[in-house]
Amino acid sequence: MGSYVAKTGEFTRDTDYISTRITADGRDGYPVEAGRYRLIVARACPWANRAIIVRRLLGLEKVMSIGFCGPTHDERSWTFDLDPDGVDPVLKIPRLRDAYFKRFPGYPKGITVPAIVDIPSGEVVTNDFAQMTLDFSTEWTAYHRDGAPQLYPEPLRAQIDEVNERVYREINNGVYQCGFAGSQQAYDDAYERLFSALDWVSERLAAQRYLVGYTITEADIRLFTTLVRFDAVYHGHFKCNRCKLTEMPVLWAYARDLFQTPGFGDTVDFVQIKRHYYLVHSDINPTGIVPKGPDLAGWLTAHGREALGGKPFGNGTPPGPPPENERVPAGHSV
Amino acid sequence: MGSYVAKTGEFTRDTDYISTRITADGRDGYPVEAGRYRLIVARACPWANRAIIVRRLLGLEKVMSIGFCGPTHDERSWTFDLDPDGVDPVLKIPRLRDAYFKRFPGYPKGITVPAIVDIPSGEVVTNDFAQMTLDFSTEWTAYHRDGAPQLYPEPLRAQIDEVNERVYREINNGVYQCGFAGSQQAYDDAYERLFSALDWVSERLAAQRYLVGYTITEADIRLFTTLVRFDAVYHGHFKCNRCKLTEMPVLWAYARDLFQTPGFGDTVDFVQIKRHYYLVHSDINPTGIVPKGPDLAGWLTAHGREALGGKPFGNGTPPGPPPENERVPAGHSV
Repeated sequence: MGSYVAKTGEFTRDTDYISTRITADGRDGYPVEAGRYRLIVARACPWANRAIIVRRLLGLEKVMSIGFCGPTHDERSWTFDLDPDGVDPVLKIPRLRDAYFKRFPGYPKGITVPAIVDIPSGEVVTNDFAQMTLDFSTEWTAYHRDGAPQLYPEPLRAQIDEVNERVYREINNGVYQCGFAGSQQAYDDAYERLFSALDWVSERLAAQRYLVGYTITEADIRLFTTLVRFDAVYHGHFKCNRCKLTEMPVLWAYARDLFQTPGFGDTVDFVQIKRHYYLVHSDINPTGIVPKGPDLAGWLTAHGREALGGKPFGNGTPPGPPPENERVPAGHSV
Repeated sequence: MGSYVAKTGEFTRDTDYISTRITADGRDGYPVEAGRYRLIVARACPWANRAIIVRRLLGLEKVMSIGFCGPTHDERSWTFDLDPDGVDPVLKIPRLRDAYFKRFPGYPKGITVPAIVDIPSGEVVTNDFAQMTLDFSTEWTAYHRDGAPQLYPEPLRAQIDEVNERVYREINNGVYQCGFAGSQQAYDDAYERLFSALDWVSERLAAQRYLVGYTITEADIRLFTTLVRFDAVYHGHFKCNRCKLTEMPVLWAYARDLFQTPGFGDTVDFVQIKRHYYLVHSDINPTGIVPKGPDLAGWLTAHGREALGGKPFGNGTPPGPPPENERVPAGHSV
């Protein structure tokens, strides 16, 4: 997402997103349609990383193009500074906010990624990151690739929702509550909640390969995008430092297992992640120095989680390699 | 020490200390004498921690009293805010700089710990941290306890000096060069030098219990005071984050071995260490939030280094427990 408010006391995330949905029946005026929408992300952002992974696992690349914002931005939020001339080649705009303003002149809330833009009108459709990936799974089924996994299967939804709720509150958002705490007490409380929740998922994953059921689901994707950033940014920059991910054996093996699964690690850009957090949050890192660590070599080591059974993609298959123009630049990953 | 200048580019430590020495022959006007001097330290400070350890290992407690400054201070430097009424009970001053000003009115350089004050005159004698501990070993021999170790034995001095030189430049001071770097390039360079030097000592210590010879020397004390602070402050706050100490197996075992040796771990106050770095350096931690981590329980685990042989105190003996009024407060250590 990428907009935040550090107040005295507890960090509160603005959870009021644009609730328009793209659905199979088009009831909000935006029907599922090949080639009509563009997903705007930033590789740095954990909330956008979810959408990148789900789009790739489901094989939606051919029907929904993707635009990448750069890792850093000023108070006017995300830009297309990675693109030639700093303009998105499809939307022809330099800043994501242009698509927000097109639909809602003077839009007063956070200009966040992930966002989906309606290409014909140039207007943002939604930035509701939580609903977006569920809709990829349930509304875009007509366009799923052959062998696409079931990431939000009907019989498991109640369980997935329950896990997601705590993972969101205490882990995905918990790291931000540590990092943006406006008082020692607010930080201390967030730290306790975060590590209690990490202990809880660790226990859950000790004897079971994935969070819910025997295959990868939406729940794993949501946990993964926080874990993969943990040592690179949350441990030091956000002071989530009881221990590193590398010091939590179950979670570290679980995270490596996913990282090494097609569609996960190949979406992760550690260089952009570090640049985003350490450069954009100048109120907690005023020097703007970006750490060189941590050493990332461990991500590719054997994890041994196959022994727990489970089938990553159920009756489906792994996705192929990402399209040439959607690859993480050489030297930006492990 | 505790005064620093963060400039553009490389951090440069002011190495111009008060060079007066307390010697057996009294040639600078300050002869070794029981009860005459007071060592002023702050437990937070790694340079002062050296002096605390050496004084204790040599058993100088009875002849040289000690005063503890609190972990935090303003631009007027170290204070006696831990003492009743905020005044050192022997020197009767609220701030260490009062002793500096007594001898040098308007003293223009850093008011640093460790410092030794002449009690009768109330004047600072020296703050030369590098010479100070060597003088405890070589000039105060008449007052060493029975069984005091040889920390700077004549035949090993050249070797010790050589190790100390690189350890000082790239490790003791290297972590500050990372943390106070004024440019990305200066940080990157300091980081490379730091971790190269840590790899070098790690290799040296792989098959040998101590840095020089078969017993603890001044070289081990100087390395220890940086290692013991590594995960608590340098890893996150100073961005020395290729890996934690706990992820460098040889150095982690070596540091635990020393920590568990009388005279080392019992001088370490993790609460004061964290408060000092995270609260005093407001330019790199403007929020003033002090991290709750890392988990310290590992410091007391078995290290297995006895198998390498060596005798910690040579033909000497370990020191007894610290005097009641010099103990690290309960809850401030492991």
